[in-house]
Amino acid sequence: MPSTDKKNLFAGVDVDGIIKKSIKSHFVKEQVLPEIDRLEESYVAEPKQFKQVSEFVSQKTKGAHVELYKGYIESLNNVSNKLDTVNRTDANSRHSDYRSFKLDETYNLNATWLHELYFANCFDPHSEVVMDSLSYLKLQRDFGTFDDWQRDFMACALAAGSGWAVCGYHMFLKKYVNFMVSHHSGDVPVGFYPLIVVDMWEHSYYKDYLNDKKSYLIAQMREFNWNTIEDRFKKAEAIATVVK
Amino acid sequence: MPSTDKKNLFAGVDVDGIIKKSIKSHFVKEQVLPEIDRLEESYVAEPKQFKQVSEFVSQKTKGAHVELYKGYIESLNNVSNKLDTVNRTDANSRHSDYRSFKLDETYNLNATWLHELYFANCFDPHSEVVMDSLSYLKLQRDFGTFDDWQRDFMACALAAGSGWAVCGYHMFLKKYVNFMVSHHSGDVPVGFYPLIVVDMWEHSYYKDYLNDKKSYLIAQMREFNWNTIEDRFKKAEAIATVVK
Amino acid sequence: MPSTDKKNLFAGVDVDGIIKKSIKSHFVKEQVLPEIDRLEESYVAEPKQFKQVSEFVSQKTKGAHVELYKGYIESLNNVSNKLDTVNRTDANSRHSDYRSFKLDETYNLNATWLHELYFANCFDPHSEVVMDSLSYLKLQRDFGTFDDWQRDFMACALAAGSGWAVCGYHMFLKKYVNFMVSHHSGDVPVGFYPLIVVDMWEHSYYKDYLNDKKSYLIAQMREFNWNTIEDRFKKAEAIATVVK
Amino acid sequence: MPSTDKKNLFAGVDVDGIIKKSIKSHFVKEQVLPEIDRLEESYVAEPKQFKQVSEFVSQKTKGAHVELYKGYIESLNNVSNKLDTVNRTDANSRHSDYRSFKLDETYNLNATWLHELYFANCFDPHSEVVMDSLSYLKLQRDFGTFDDWQRDFMACALAAGSGWAVCGYHMFLKKYVNFMVSHHSGDVPVGFYPLIVVDMWEHSYYKDYLNDKKSYLIAQMREFNWNTIEDRFKKAEAIATVVK
Repeated sequence: MPSTDKKNLFAGVDVDGIIKKSIKSHFVKEQVLPEIDRLEESYVAEPKQFKQVSEFVSQKTKGAHVELYKGYIESLNNVSNKLDTVNRTDANSRHSDYRSFKLDETYNLNATWLHELYFANCFDPHSEVVMDSLSYLKLQRDFGTFDDWQRDFMACALAAGSGWAVCGYHMFLKKYVNFMVSHHSGDVPVGFYPLIVVDMWEHSYYKDYLNDKKSYLIAQMREFNWNTIEDRFKKAEAIATVVK
Repeated sequence: MPSTDKKNLFAGVDVDGIIKKSIKSHFVKEQVLPEIDRLEESYVAEPKQFKQVSEFVSQKTKGAHVELYKGYIESLNNVSNKLDTVNRTDANSRHSDYRSFKLDETYNLNATWLHELYFANCFDPHSEVVMDSLSYLKLQRDFGTFDDWQRDFMACALAAGSGWAVCGYHMFLKKYVNFMVSHHSGDVPVGFYPLIVVDMWEHSYYKDYLNDKKSYLIAQMREFNWNTIEDRFKKAEAIATVVK
Repeated sequence: MPSTDKKNLFAGVDVDGIIKKSIKSHFVKEQVLPEIDRLEESYVAEPKQFKQVSEFVSQKTKGAHVELYKGYIESLNNVSNKLDTVNRTDANSRHSDYRSFKLDETYNLNATWLHELYFANCFDPHSEVVMDSLSYLKLQRDFGTFDDWQRDFMACALAAGSGWAVCGYHMFLKKYVNFMVSHHSGDVPVGFYPLIVVDMWEHSYYKDYLNDKKSYLIAQMREFNWNTIEDRFKKAEAIATVVK
Repeated sequence: MPSTDKKNLFAGVDVDGIIKKSIKSHFVKEQVLPEIDRLEESYVAEPKQFKQVSEFVSQKTKGAHVELYKGYIESLNNVSNKLDTVNRTDANSRHSDYRSFKLDETYNLNATWLHELYFANCFDPHSEVVMDSLSYLKLQRDFGTFDDWQRDFMACALAAGSGWAVCGYHMFLKKYVNFMVSHHSGDVPVGFYPLIVVDMWEHSYYKDYLNDKKSYLIAQMREFNWNTIEDRFKKAEAIATVVK
């Protein structure tokens, strides 16, 4: 229950009456809320810079990939801005701007974030995982052996189609799990904190590997930046403590 | 970087050589990993009991809803068990057991968890949100006013089709946002911790409300259990601190 | 090859030069076409009336179902109209009105047509299939026995989720096949002419049957209007001749 | 109505009793049908050969594309075969082999057919559309001008994401329409006979054009084989007569 002794949020004013005001009774009485003039919910994402040293993915592929990423950010900012003023009163599941915009928001939001995670956790040919890292130990714990995690992750990636392979912490299962994501927003687990991300859309590998996506995948796994990943595992472990 | 002074994870044994062993070099040399005999990854979820006092949703609807929920748990346990021994070497995106099972795992996992969150956060006709609760203050902060959050959440729910309306904490945007989920696993934001959940599948309301899903929705919103929700906000705020 | 002797489509004018004009060369030279001012492509669908005598589905369910159907037609007309003037030059796959409108067009178009087929082929408790009908003979031919068709159709319906079970003529396979459709526009075979349609969205049965969708399905199959279905088989057979 | 005078399908036997036997009454009495031992429904698709002369798409891209197509055929045959003996009695929408196999059947069936249509209608640099062809006249009729059709088709293709742009005859609208298809089986109109097909998956163009899918698209449209397309329009017009 919200504390009731923490009396005074609006300094200098005795707000007892206000604090006791129940939203429910308000909502019950009014039934239909007055329209929103304008939400101030929009955000502006800025593209980030990534150092991407790679022995296995060509400069052309990487350059084109960054272009795509910037396209998603542009669309995300665009749709986020429109959502401030979109008509919410005619929102429906058959055809409405609200629905279309929310779908596109999720799509571009995931695309943006997944690309950033991918760019940051791949492309370091010199990084190595060591056996007393959190990354190693936690994957070993939840998959039996680190090798078994690798095999499962590879299976995920090869099964993903145009989409993503993601290893993350699942806040309901309270363990590390691999999942495929279809496209950017299909088949996504709710409550899943992503840690290791490989892009399996064809644009990631087709220029360099044509249909041989297994070789691309192995190349990426060799170039995982385990320092970046280790930082994410630290956060995941902290989240694990919170949701316990 | 993983600490290297934390020497001894396997007590009594000097594990320096082991610790230094790089997975990458192993992986690079072997190229193709030996097959997994059997993962020990499966979990067994147990259906929970929920107190569901409601003035607006009939006993028949609630009874049938709990049956559906149990069906998802059964399927989840079933598919989780199969994933231990599924063939991972032929995983592909066109037709493979691995792909089908992983899709069904995500589907039933989300269905299970979303139903549990929904059953626990609805159906308390006497709960009220108060203005100095975290729930109230954080939604007010991120949506301008609590009423604006309500309007946006309603728009989400009415636009969701056979799916869910979910308010949650987004770990990338670092704010509270409403999202629609299509079915159980479509159009789901990655890195989203769910806090307030309303089931918008037709089975939730059709017996009692036929097409009038707005009345159903308002009824649910009046019966939100704000104590349960407040506990979730506390966790979300702790997560917010972690991912900052 | 287009006939070249069919000289004169624009009466009284010698159109040889025009006829020889190659679109390709035009297209090659111009590269970017001037914008469309306005397509005149929109259509207006009118809701139809259906006689729905049923022993197994309640009047309330049927009434609400017809309401839903009218909602789809309204949305279809709405989006069709917008497509005439939507901006085509910024069409893209991340976020554009054109994409959103086309997705909604397909969704509402399928919803409209599938409902019409369903309303017309169900709800006749007195109709019977006879063994020398095209319906019977063709299903027997392609499934081994009529009973086997029934079993496969039932499996389809029970596996469909919020969606449809459809038996139709597949113009590529050149045979009659059962398919599930997810929602209205997911998992749809290309080149599929629908003949027998059962709505498996929860709104079709939840009021009357709650979770017992098998009983609903059997009830619907008992009330198939085989006269209507036979007419569709005649068309399908004519199509079969065309695509042979 | 099924003819009743067409007495004798099983030669030499008076089959009146059999003919009058109503499936309904059988179905009503039995309620649950005995299990299917084995359907004999499976088909075997063979990959076709295509002449693909192109000035704009590289040999490597085309070779890899044909490989992908063969993969779909292999998966299609595989899943079609399994469907003969899959357990139909436990078919359900949460997790069942029947559901997974039917989804994969549709996916691979569409992939196979769409690729065949695409390979056959692209890659002829010397073909031209002439103005008295059915192709030209019908598209002009339904889009206002042939150029307007081209613009709409281009918008479709650029909005399609990993998927297809398809112009076809819609048997419900009774006109020619352009549609996007997502992946292979998403957002597909029911009752749609495909005529002009362009693959917009990234594997079609990424090797040669990177992100410049507009140039790829224009190149493909320049190489449309209008003879092949004209044959399809003839079939579509015959279908139009049937469904009138």
